[in-house]
Amino acid sequence: MSESLTRRGLAEVFGTFWLVFGGCGSAIFAAKQIARDTDHGLTFEVGIGYLGVALAFGLTVVTMAYAVGHISGGHFNPAVTLGAVIGGRLSARDLPVYWVSQVVGGLIAGTALWVIAKGQPGFTAEGNMAANGFGDHSPGKYGVGAVLLAEIILTGFFIIVILGSTDTRAPKGFGPLAIGLSLTLIHLISIPISNTSVNPARSTGVAFFNGDGAPGQLWLFWLAPLIGAAIGGVIYPLLFENGKLKIKTD
Amino acid sequence: MSESLTRRGLAEVFGTFWLVFGGCGSAIFAAKQIARDTDHGLTFEVGIGYLGVALAFGLTVVTMAYAVGHISGGHFNPAVTLGAVIGGRLSARDLPVYWVSQVVGGLIAGTALWVIAKGQPGFTAEGNMAANGFGDHSPGKYGVGAVLLAEIILTGFFIIVILGSTDTRAPKGFGPLAIGLSLTLIHLISIPISNTSVNPARSTGVAFFNGDGAPGQLWLFWLAPLIGAAIGGVIYPLLFENGKLKIKTD
Amino acid sequence: MSESLTRRGLAEVFGTFWLVFGGCGSAIFAAKQIARDTDHGLTFEVGIGYLGVALAFGLTVVTMAYAVGHISGGHFNPAVTLGAVIGGRLSARDLPVYWVSQVVGGLIAGTALWVIAKGQPGFTAEGNMAANGFGDHSPGKYGVGAVLLAEIILTGFFIIVILGSTDTRAPKGFGPLAIGLSLTLIHLISIPISNTSVNPARSTGVAFFNGDGAPGQLWLFWLAPLIGAAIGGVIYPLLFENGKLKIKTD
Amino acid sequence: MSESLTRRGLAEVFGTFWLVFGGCGSAIFAAKQIARDTDHGLTFEVGIGYLGVALAFGLTVVTMAYAVGHISGGHFNPAVTLGAVIGGRLSARDLPVYWVSQVVGGLIAGTALWVIAKGQPGFTAEGNMAANGFGDHSPGKYGVGAVLLAEIILTGFFIIVILGSTDTRAPKGFGPLAIGLSLTLIHLISIPISNTSVNPARSTGVAFFNGDGAPGQLWLFWLAPLIGAAIGGVIYPLLFENGKLKIKTD
Repeated sequence: MSESLTRRGLAEVFGTFWLVFGGCGSAIFAAKQIARDTDHGLTFEVGIGYLGVALAFGLTVVTMAYAVGHISGGHFNPAVTLGAVIGGRLSARDLPVYWVSQVVGGLIAGTALWVIAKGQPGFTAEGNMAANGFGDHSPGKYGVGAVLLAEIILTGFFIIVILGSTDTRAPKGFGPLAIGLSLTLIHLISIPISNTSVNPARSTGVAFFNGDGAPGQLWLFWLAPLIGAAIGGVIYPLLFENGKLKIKTD
Repeated sequence: MSESLTRRGLAEVFGTFWLVFGGCGSAIFAAKQIARDTDHGLTFEVGIGYLGVALAFGLTVVTMAYAVGHISGGHFNPAVTLGAVIGGRLSARDLPVYWVSQVVGGLIAGTALWVIAKGQPGFTAEGNMAANGFGDHSPGKYGVGAVLLAEIILTGFFIIVILGSTDTRAPKGFGPLAIGLSLTLIHLISIPISNTSVNPARSTGVAFFNGDGAPGQLWLFWLAPLIGAAIGGVIYPLLFENGKLKIKTD
Repeated sequence: MSESLTRRGLAEVFGTFWLVFGGCGSAIFAAKQIARDTDHGLTFEVGIGYLGVALAFGLTVVTMAYAVGHISGGHFNPAVTLGAVIGGRLSARDLPVYWVSQVVGGLIAGTALWVIAKGQPGFTAEGNMAANGFGDHSPGKYGVGAVLLAEIILTGFFIIVILGSTDTRAPKGFGPLAIGLSLTLIHLISIPISNTSVNPARSTGVAFFNGDGAPGQLWLFWLAPLIGAAIGGVIYPLLFENGKLKIKTD
Repeated sequence: MSESLTRRGLAEVFGTFWLVFGGCGSAIFAAKQIARDTDHGLTFEVGIGYLGVALAFGLTVVTMAYAVGHISGGHFNPAVTLGAVIGGRLSARDLPVYWVSQVVGGLIAGTALWVIAKGQPGFTAEGNMAANGFGDHSPGKYGVGAVLLAEIILTGFFIIVILGSTDTRAPKGFGPLAIGLSLTLIHLISIPISNTSVNPARSTGVAFFNGDGAPGQLWLFWLAPLIGAAIGGVIYPLLFENGKLKIKTD
């Protein structure tokens, strides 16, 4: 990663765009679908469901982490960047550029999704843009405490998987696969709970297009992932590396 | 890739056959299926749905890119070949042979699918051959603008993943996996929008067997993927390599 | 592969057991399932469907090819062994031991499946043991010609993927993954056509437990995979290696 | 694995937590889900089903084995630890710490799942915590003999895949992928039979929260996996290594 910060920021813009466009896009366009066989008068549930959405989110990371991970490290997520800083893998000085790039990428993706979705007759963005939520806005009506706890645990383990699978002692080259598939796993667990964030840029990218209470709940999807990431970023070096925290600032 | 152009063309014929036969075949034969348990008078939706079709398309590329990628580079798609030329990975001189091979492979696959499908009593090809479409021929009735935009964005990112994951700085050997899984991801997002092309050879291979308006809309599934591929082929070297375009012609 | 032929045969017994037990087992036990939520009076389709069965078949090969591929090459399939012989990767002298081991492994697996399945109250083996079939015994009632053609094409490509992904020019170590995932892909395409064989040992392992016409149709699921494998075993060396066939006999 | 036993134990706590939290969590939260499209008065089955649960269990192992496998070997399962000891890969002296760590990790995960699940209005833990069972407590009402046999066979092969894919002769780095995917496969086969254990820590972690007969059946989900693991741990070195058992004790 001797790449310039500009180039790394651009990689984060593209990667976060792909994460939000692919992950939220699969949810918006493809999760709930019925196909009719008019020849035989039958209907079939062909939508990809939560399983397909979980796979899509994971594959955005698998694919772009192999594609531009060698440029920026392939975070595409402000919580991951925080975890990488606390875990000693990225200089704290670089965090602001990463965060801005990620939010910008997420918002451009939200815009693109909104434009395409409007191309379907009868589409209403309100409540249909894959926003995260708790309470009445949780898919399964999970309360704020459950959502907080789930998002913290899941983001914490996400960071542990990231720091561990890219540890010099881990098998070489498998990091993007393990990291992306952990995002799939996280979605398999928690879409009904919070629609799964673990990523403030993903939540921000679609919240304002979604409306329907999402902007007002956005604070939790910054707070919980960042807390979880901080915990994960402390745990890995303390328990599984040399037992010391060393945040780089240059 | 010191292989002869003839051998590389043959690899592209076989690979594109497999992509169209496997991807479109899974959609034609297996997406919508009901199984009856006559012992207990129950029916079950056992079809693979859009998720299974997305997986199938991706796995055609994973498998044949590992099998013959060392021969031809494993494009199986005229848009990918254009992106590889613009991205400086293939000589422009080789493009015509690649394109012809890909279209031939796609058409042979369409023929094989049609022959097998006719082996099922009551099958009508009209409208049931997994063609791409927009407007009334889009699965979700998405308009021409939305389809154009989606196909351009998706093909653009497909090329970025291809050029990035086969970059010398990326982990060795994972390219076919990342590239194939990005095709799965692309289908998870966009089957309801356009039935997903991002590949003119795939669209051409089944359009004429499908009829039902598909041949008349084929132009878009050449135009949009090629535009997207050109954009992706420009972006990667400019932003993530040495910042220069260098198209090879020998 | 300096392993003794006995040890290699044992690896093929275990591997083919796993392929039939896992692939056919997932179909028998898990494809069609309803779960009731008695608290809320709802029912859900939780069965793994054809997609899950396709994944299971592929994963049997991914897992055992990584586990014992270094012993025997990881065929688990008489057609693959034929293709490996014709493709010059295995001595013709070893074929009989491989074939016998594979059929034995398949039959033991069929027995184990039958014993476990009988542990469910009300289970009838007749017609419910995941047998292959054509015509009235094809899931989608596909005729004998369509089934023959599909099985030949699919086995042919299976062999091409096997020979190509284990070619010395292909990325190292990814063979088992590519080969297993190609078996998943093959099932995604063709379960409705023939319940997917491409493997005579898999067909034989369950045919007699299944009854219901399966034993009488078994000939096709030896003939078609072996023809396809022979074709694939000729194509790869002729088109993509040095252009010569060289069957080893020592 | 020159890591201290304390550190290895901690890795097993975290890994087993993740296995139970992710695998059982996906079953509890996401397997059975309906989404309503209130704009069009439609409902869709969007739950991840047994296929999604199978994938989740496997991915917990794929991800944490890449993350902390270099610390502890990545067992996360008392049966795997037994198999590793018998297979000569771990000193018998370390087994108690591994077992205690795994059970502790599983129980913490069960607690976390219970706390989050209670955050959904109307949730009752009784019978809804993804416990394993036989007879009336088997999803498909499979009897004790069938469950015993299935769990023994599946755990035995799990150990063979683990010992084989981490054999020095196997491709480097793919072990975690093969092992995790074999756990997915095992679930694809056997969720209807026993809700799939092959892991006493997973069964123990949720049994007491689940109640409803699960604690009283827990003995089988220690007995059968341990028997299977012992058999697998004997088979691999005897048949596929140097033909000798050598249990290390220092």
